[in-house]
Amino acid sequence: MYSFESNYRVRYADIDQMGFMYYGNYAKLFEIGRVEALRNLGVRYKDLEDGGIWMPVYENNSKYLEPAKYDELLTIKCTLKEMPRVRIVFDTEVLNESKKIIHKGLTTLVFIKADSKQITTCPPIIIEKLSPFFK
Amino acid sequence: MYSFESNYRVRYADIDQMGFMYYGNYAKLFEIGRVEALRNLGVRYKDLEDGGIWMPVYENNSKYLEPAKYDELLTIKCTLKEMPRVRIVFDTEVLNESKKIIHKGLTTLVFIKADSKQITTCPPIIIEKLSPFFK
Amino acid sequence: MYSFESNYRVRYADIDQMGFMYYGNYAKLFEIGRVEALRNLGVRYKDLEDGGIWMPVYENNSKYLEPAKYDELLTIKCTLKEMPRVRIVFDTEVLNESKKIIHKGLTTLVFIKADSKQITTCPPIIIEKLSPFFK
Amino acid sequence: MYSFESNYRVRYADIDQMGFMYYGNYAKLFEIGRVEALRNLGVRYKDLEDGGIWMPVYENNSKYLEPAKYDELLTIKCTLKEMPRVRIVFDTEVLNESKKIIHKGLTTLVFIKADSKQITTCPPIIIEKLSPFFK
Repeated sequence: MYSFESNYRVRYADIDQMGFMYYGNYAKLFEIGRVEALRNLGVRYKDLEDGGIWMPVYENNSKYLEPAKYDELLTIKCTLKEMPRVRIVFDTEVLNESKKIIHKGLTTLVFIKADSKQITTCPPIIIEKLSPFFK
Repeated sequence: MYSFESNYRVRYADIDQMGFMYYGNYAKLFEIGRVEALRNLGVRYKDLEDGGIWMPVYENNSKYLEPAKYDELLTIKCTLKEMPRVRIVFDTEVLNESKKIIHKGLTTLVFIKADSKQITTCPPIIIEKLSPFFK
Repeated sequence: MYSFESNYRVRYADIDQMGFMYYGNYAKLFEIGRVEALRNLGVRYKDLEDGGIWMPVYENNSKYLEPAKYDELLTIKCTLKEMPRVRIVFDTEVLNESKKIIHKGLTTLVFIKADSKQITTCPPIIIEKLSPFFK
Repeated sequence: MYSFESNYRVRYADIDQMGFMYYGNYAKLFEIGRVEALRNLGVRYKDLEDGGIWMPVYENNSKYLEPAKYDELLTIKCTLKEMPRVRIVFDTEVLNESKKIIHKGLTTLVFIKADSKQITTCPPIIIEKLSPFFK
């Protein structure tokens, strides 16, 4: 298992007229969570892309337990529970300032070759960097 | 069962550098789908809100089958398969111009009283307008 | 002078916790205004792009006279007051349902070649389609 | 004069299919710039709002000098050149990783009372915290 925490300050741009973060904006938090989790491993998503690998989202499931509110400093806890193969699954918990879990997300991405748009397997660099966490 | 179709033109604002609609932007399409489905029934979400009822999203599941692309005129097909009680579940299919389903969403919303933030049941106006479709 | 009107329904996604459209979201309205103004002329922005011409925004000035509110059906009035040369300037007025101007925008775009990223002049197809309006 | 610098990592959500930050997304950067500039002074925008003062944007002028690109760590330099009275003007420069200015923004906000929606003057707390910088 590999886990990494990032932070995100809720902005006015994110909030709707109920005073809650708009439900579509959690996708950005998951993006931040998984890109920073990979960067912390030594894998920069931009480099994967420059190397011809894209990682489009295939499935996303979100549970809205409590609303995120304006100016809160959220914690995005992103966890990989299994070694990726043809898919990579990021498990995300969003916590508010009192460390209460307010949102849960489960995001499945696939790997495709940018040129052919064909499905491929997880790049070796990710496997290599993750392997110490899955012994 | 009650079903309604809306249209949405994909804008530059929606598209990422893969040339695909960013995965977080489908939430807006689902919103359009359900608000227009209700409006077509004779229920304006704004009126519900002005009457003290909020409908925050509780759960959202999305399957990304194929990407939406710039300038496509999408069809958002929104279906209610069950009479709402404490929850209302909108089943959304997004179709491209060749009428192929490219995305599936399942969105569960709850009803809360704006003043107390307490969970409540589905407003009678929605039940009344939906009942002809669930005989 | 050439002018064209489009409509836009304000969505929950657009509104902030003051109950106003978030100030950054008017850019999307301007985009809709100018793309539909061009489409009405017979010029599809997607075709320009497929033909190797990009039109990035160079300058944007916005005046927020009154807020747009949730569920309003806005009118986006987009006007070209001068024949484009190396720049194209779209003058946008956003009107609410009572036809009051609530927002003014002035957006300058340039033409660049997608391959070389070099500045170029306005594509002949735009000049040709606009010329009847500038006699 | 008072100036403050914040950072922003460009996300996939921000980028369009030219590979440039979508022109409407700079508004979020300006928001971050001014809110963090105020926080650094000891003024939290949330507290102003909780105290009944809203600061809607009245005018925004943006110059797009060069595109921001995916995964760049931008610097948002936000400057107040004059003491606010009925308006407050934030001058924003966005710099890329090589410290080149790629965007300039000038944003004017007004102060209104949340209850009456009437224009009011700059809250004393802002004047007090800014005064050491305008001697």
